[in-house]
Amino acid sequence: MEKNWLAQIQWNTDGLIPVIVQEQGSKDVLMMAWMNSDTLLETIELGQAIYWSRSRKKRWHKGEESGHFQNVQGVYLDCDGDTLLLVVEQVGAIACHTGAHSCFFQELESTSLPFGWKELSGVRK
Amino acid sequence: MEKNWLAQIQWNTDGLIPVIVQEQGSKDVLMMAWMNSDTLLETIELGQAIYWSRSRKKRWHKGEESGHFQNVQGVYLDCDGDTLLLVVEQVGAIACHTGAHSCFFQELESTSLPFGWKELSGVRK
Repeated sequence: MEKNWLAQIQWNTDGLIPVIVQEQGSKDVLMMAWMNSDTLLETIELGQAIYWSRSRKKRWHKGEESGHFQNVQGVYLDCDGDTLLLVVEQVGAIACHTGAHSCFFQELESTSLPFGWKELSGVRK
Repeated sequence: MEKNWLAQIQWNTDGLIPVIVQEQGSKDVLMMAWMNSDTLLETIELGQAIYWSRSRKKRWHKGEESGHFQNVQGVYLDCDGDTLLLVVEQVGAIACHTGAHSCFFQELESTSLPFGWKELSGVRK
């Protein structure tokens, strides 16, 4: 495989790049994860999201335990080459390990004191 | 100001957190940037996005030079507290320093060889 496109990516000092994951259709931002060059290549070859787990320090095929795979619909690189945007079909509509649709289910309530993170409820979560 | 909500954030070893920026309405992912606790506080107090520029190592009030300010509509924290999602009204509909609407205007063409990053054109960019 021609890999010039891979060399255009600005990996961080750990050899990783942050990956924003957006659901096709709803356009909801589901999560953020990280990839190294191996897992990015594998993601593209397989057509499903495979990340690098920084906490477990290992390859992580998203959905391997939950069944909530992410089928890749598009891969985008930002202007300075140091962030990826992955557009996916989210199997089961659940991206978060908590069972939530999106990992971003805590909204900052800052219109009255005390400020705090408030969980979204119902369909928004 | 009560700041317990600030203590719930998992800052990285540089005291920063990645911030995904999404446009209200279109739900387009516009860019990714970074904040420290000072710029996050200032963002919330001002109601406009203020980041920490890692390359320039300084506070960066988005739009201060271009006029393309980002008016904050919502702030969300992810499940493990280490990534923020900022929903904004993008003044001028231009978020990228290149003049593009979104920084993610390079799409990976991987259906035929050679693979490569292809710039989106027209309204998609």
